[in-house]
Amino acid sequence: MVTWQEVVAQKRADRETLLEPYKLPETGLPPKDDLYVYDFFDKGGADSLLSTKEKEITAIDDIDTLAAKIREGTYSATEVITAYIKRATVAHQLTNALSEVVFEQALARAKGLDEYYAKEGKTVGKYHGVPLTLKDQFNVYGVDTTLGYVGRANNPVMDKSKEAVLVTIFEKEGAVVIAKTNLPQSIMWCECENPLWGCTVNPRRRDFTSGGSTGGEGALLALKASIMGWGTDLGGSVRIPQVMNGGYGLRPSAWRIPYEGVPVTIDGQEHVPSVIGPMTRNLDSLISITKTVIENEPWTLDPKCIPIPWRQEIFDQYLSKKKFIIGVMKDDGVVRVHPPIERTLREAAEKLKAAGHEIVEWSAPDLHQELVPILNKFYIADGGEDVKTDVNKMGEPFMPYVEEMVNRGPPISIPEYWHNMVLKRELQKKYLDRWNASGKLTSTSEPIDFILAPGCPHTAVPCRKTNWVGYTRVWNGLDYSAAVFPVSKVDKEIDSLNEEQRAYVPRNDWDSTNWPLYDPETMDGLPVNLQIVAGRLAEEKLLAVVKRVEEVLNA
Amino acid sequence: MVTWQEVVAQKRADRETLLEPYKLPETGLPPKDDLYVYDFFDKGGADSLLSTKEKEITAIDDIDTLAAKIREGTYSATEVITAYIKRATVAHQLTNALSEVVFEQALARAKGLDEYYAKEGKTVGKYHGVPLTLKDQFNVYGVDTTLGYVGRANNPVMDKSKEAVLVTIFEKEGAVVIAKTNLPQSIMWCECENPLWGCTVNPRRRDFTSGGSTGGEGALLALKASIMGWGTDLGGSVRIPQVMNGGYGLRPSAWRIPYEGVPVTIDGQEHVPSVIGPMTRNLDSLISITKTVIENEPWTLDPKCIPIPWRQEIFDQYLSKKKFIIGVMKDDGVVRVHPPIERTLREAAEKLKAAGHEIVEWSAPDLHQELVPILNKFYIADGGEDVKTDVNKMGEPFMPYVEEMVNRGPPISIPEYWHNMVLKRELQKKYLDRWNASGKLTSTSEPIDFILAPGCPHTAVPCRKTNWVGYTRVWNGLDYSAAVFPVSKVDKEIDSLNEEQRAYVPRNDWDSTNWPLYDPETMDGLPVNLQIVAGRLAEEKLLAVVKRVEEVLNA
Repeated sequence: MVTWQEVVAQKRADRETLLEPYKLPETGLPPKDDLYVYDFFDKGGADSLLSTKEKEITAIDDIDTLAAKIREGTYSATEVITAYIKRATVAHQLTNALSEVVFEQALARAKGLDEYYAKEGKTVGKYHGVPLTLKDQFNVYGVDTTLGYVGRANNPVMDKSKEAVLVTIFEKEGAVVIAKTNLPQSIMWCECENPLWGCTVNPRRRDFTSGGSTGGEGALLALKASIMGWGTDLGGSVRIPQVMNGGYGLRPSAWRIPYEGVPVTIDGQEHVPSVIGPMTRNLDSLISITKTVIENEPWTLDPKCIPIPWRQEIFDQYLSKKKFIIGVMKDDGVVRVHPPIERTLREAAEKLKAAGHEIVEWSAPDLHQELVPILNKFYIADGGEDVKTDVNKMGEPFMPYVEEMVNRGPPISIPEYWHNMVLKRELQKKYLDRWNASGKLTSTSEPIDFILAPGCPHTAVPCRKTNWVGYTRVWNGLDYSAAVFPVSKVDKEIDSLNEEQRAYVPRNDWDSTNWPLYDPETMDGLPVNLQIVAGRLAEEKLLAVVKRVEEVLNA
Repeated sequence: MVTWQEVVAQKRADRETLLEPYKLPETGLPPKDDLYVYDFFDKGGADSLLSTKEKEITAIDDIDTLAAKIREGTYSATEVITAYIKRATVAHQLTNALSEVVFEQALARAKGLDEYYAKEGKTVGKYHGVPLTLKDQFNVYGVDTTLGYVGRANNPVMDKSKEAVLVTIFEKEGAVVIAKTNLPQSIMWCECENPLWGCTVNPRRRDFTSGGSTGGEGALLALKASIMGWGTDLGGSVRIPQVMNGGYGLRPSAWRIPYEGVPVTIDGQEHVPSVIGPMTRNLDSLISITKTVIENEPWTLDPKCIPIPWRQEIFDQYLSKKKFIIGVMKDDGVVRVHPPIERTLREAAEKLKAAGHEIVEWSAPDLHQELVPILNKFYIADGGEDVKTDVNKMGEPFMPYVEEMVNRGPPISIPEYWHNMVLKRELQKKYLDRWNASGKLTSTSEPIDFILAPGCPHTAVPCRKTNWVGYTRVWNGLDYSAAVFPVSKVDKEIDSLNEEQRAYVPRNDWDSTNWPLYDPETMDGLPVNLQIVAGRLAEEKLLAVVKRVEEVLNA
């Protein structure tokens, strides 16, 4: 009988073997207790491995720019994939971000792309030779899909037709999967740690979490070790790691992006559905890949996908709208955000106002407070049975947060479950009505165009300390499109606690846990993201307004 | 303590009081044992009540034509509403179709519309003065929403904001609700009978069912006693009554038409969702009202609605497509259709072929057989608790089909429920893949445009005899847009059983129950409908192809 420890040892050894050819020697790495590895590449730490050209390639943040360089013949697919393989390997050595490694397949594919290019004089698809990484939840041919469970190891996808539809689409567009990335045991946690692969840490402070659940992608993108990442988001799992790493992440409304071929915990719980979202290093990339997926008509491959084509006219309409009416949400009424978030949001609102946009206060704490417990009920409606079954399969230990979650209570009945659906729908209706009624607050009587809100109540935090995800989860419950994007950085000088903040008495347990986490010293320099929320199935509008807002904030 | 019988007596007495001013005297009605009342109006049966003008008004099948006559001043709103009130009252006397009667409110509203028209010289909305009837499931101000339960009586909707969004939309468009119509106890049956209001019968043969669950609408429309009906469809409840009455009915994909403000049995069971669908007397009306609802952007009022605008370009594309590839589905592999359906489908395919379209056989009995039990599991996942609670509230008796349904088994667990969702999704994927693969069967390698299929395995049947709804329900499971439309009539000469049919040995219990129901003598002259299925969220395509097919079949 194989033990879970043996499986872990074997899986990790296999991974090391695949990484071996591209690794820096241990001696070339920063000491384990060096917390700050974010600028490792910039400071030349990997120069013995990455050529100048490879550093140049991986310095490009924009996917379309990289694709154009390959199309023009500046770089070959093999050069690009090799550069990213090397950088991803080192990033992994620094943060433990990778799970399944498919470098050799990727290089073979790149070779094929180069041969096609040489022979035909043209590229395959829009992203010929562009690398791609995925949370270890997407089915990729030849490797496991573990969801962070030891018990799901050694069961590789051996049927090409079972691959994620998203992989099929990007393969058609010429992109190349180079690796899959780490996630928490059961997926259902906002950090990134499991007994199989261990913990993925934040490159900016290695005692801090890289966020989750799509934490592997967050760390890789921060280190420019991937250029296109894909995650899933049930309560913030695409957005939280990008908040914690200062990146870009989109939570589309459900069934805009194909989920087919992506196994998930508590599969069948489609009532607060997990959705797939892109993660990138700049906004144009986020727009480009979202648009590309939709232009590939995923509803012809995934029966759950909604056949809404990419609506360029809506994107253009918001890109050129003269004046936005912006609902600024400072607080969800449950957990107060840390001072740098408060400051960043205030400054952003001021800048937007100065740029001619109208700012109104968006406040719906009653609805936020009501919605979160309803959503939580869905996740453990089975009394944790689904997760317990997977954890117990090999006898691996429960991660503390998983153990807490699955032991919260007994399963609920079907009538209770249906009733919970009704409660959720009623809140969705109330939220929509309140949005519509916001015209009462505005100078034009038009309702708000979007909500500008915190992404999380904090920046990155020490490992295992994240606890309140209400700022992201509520939009999952409402099924609104939401995106996070970097706006500012913690500055220990200006973000030190003022008198009012020092005297703040937290409102509840969540708040009491969150508030003292703030430490201007250890958090100094960490990125601060904000979140924009645009309503349901409003991805084009959302992406256009984030672009406009970013232009104002960067001006 | 009030008994259920007392509630029934009071509700029926109240209804009689409201109908009284518009009723024909008992002596003017056909004898109870006269089964054939379909041509009662044409034969002058109601001439003592309806003026020539009122007969002329109610003879118009097309909604836009009627609206145009009102707009041009040919008829006033009051004349139209009065004509329909009278005809609906008599139709009710003949078939027991109405539940809640709001004639006086309707007349007051018509008066208001006429005053507006006189003063402003223009109409309110697109359907100024056009009458509208609704299944007794839509919330309408001032009256009950019973869902066919005695226990829900005497609890009227007294908050205007709780009215069905659909009612709000049509009110804005100038249409006038005149009554609500009968449905079965619990809604969940394909006929139309409950202890509160009794049974709605088929005007073409009063010992036959008018179908269900939206049977009241079916009977009214058949007698030209409504021009616009709205029902709901969880397994065929819009289509089955229109099959049994020779009318037009559309089952849109879920959340295209707003469900907000429409209470439903097992509310929260949104996994095989009940959807709202229009029912009309001709196809152009079906198109017009579907388009109008969508053009009113229902997603701004109903958070579940999908923001897909009316796609005129898709409608036009299919309206002008030169050659269709049509998958003809003769049999679902479970229940064989009766001879007139078989013949009608065969003749239709021949005509379509002769008109230049390509016919291929669509056969997916394995998927149909797998899907139906999965769907059934959702409906009674709570072990019938929801329905039992409503039936037991006043102690009314269970209708036989309800009793059978709620006692089929114990509730299932959440893991089983989620697993059932996964099974459904897998079948949806298989069906989509098979549809896509149909290009292998066609001359152009393009997949089929749509499926032409039976609507039911029979025409109207004797009351309480309907049993197999797999021909409609399967599309609910797949969430495909489907419409039924009249094509032919039973002809006892040509539809008598041939040798093969006489020797047919049914395959299973469903088939054994259904096959002997066929009787060319009693069914002679009953309408035969067919069904067209166009894929998911494909209402524009569906309506356009039904129009094209109907043109060919009527040529």
